[in-house]
Amino acid sequence: MIQPIRIAEKLSAFSDHWNPRVIAELNGQHVKLAKFQGEFVWHDHANEDELFLVLKGRFRMEFRDGAVEVGEGEMIVVPRGVEHRPVAEQEVHVMLFEPASTRHTGDAVDDRTVTEYEWI
Amino acid sequence: MIQPIRIAEKLSAFSDHWNPRVIAELNGQHVKLAKFQGEFVWHDHANEDELFLVLKGRFRMEFRDGAVEVGEGEMIVVPRGVEHRPVAEQEVHVMLFEPASTRHTGDAVDDRTVTEYEWI
Repeated sequence: MIQPIRIAEKLSAFSDHWNPRVIAELNGQHVKLAKFQGEFVWHDHANEDELFLVLKGRFRMEFRDGAVEVGEGEMIVVPRGVEHRPVAEQEVHVMLFEPASTRHTGDAVDDRTVTEYEWI
Repeated sequence: MIQPIRIAEKLSAFSDHWNPRVIAELNGQHVKLAKFQGEFVWHDHANEDELFLVLKGRFRMEFRDGAVEVGEGEMIVVPRGVEHRPVAEQEVHVMLFEPASTRHTGDAVDDRTVTEYEWI
């Protein structure tokens, strides 16, 4: 029997920042959960649009020409090719929806770059 | 500037049941919002997996071999080809992720079938 996925339970399974976990795959897309705090690296994704849905807290999505705040119950779609940098003053819990091929730091690589995403 | 999408605001824009609205498109996928109440039609999608994320309330997803309850903060992925029928005793608010090609009643057609989804 297909079972529901409890998001709060999945979020409680990890506490590190900038390390998305996969909770579902469908149509070649991954649904991931992540916790952000601090400043991420500037990057873009040449071939992937990326959705960020805030489950708890808020963060600022910086673009080269400005920034927007994304709060709880809000989401933002960053189109492919658009440079962006998420910044969270305080911890924020985020759901990501993007192609399974997506590397979270895009073409940039830093010590937080993950190449194989863990399923939880 | 890319703007965040406020889910509560989008949900307040419609009140009818079983009539999903599109709020975003990325990577050939649609993000939709819907309100369910009552029993939907049995159907499957030959080529599309479908994700249901409960934003408010709860519903029962019936399969031919049983049923599961999906509550607030939970989600369920129905793989392509699996017959299913959502049933909501009380109104439930749901976010859907699925290919833009998906018809919500699958191969079944009833008087609720929508062929062109409205963007809100």
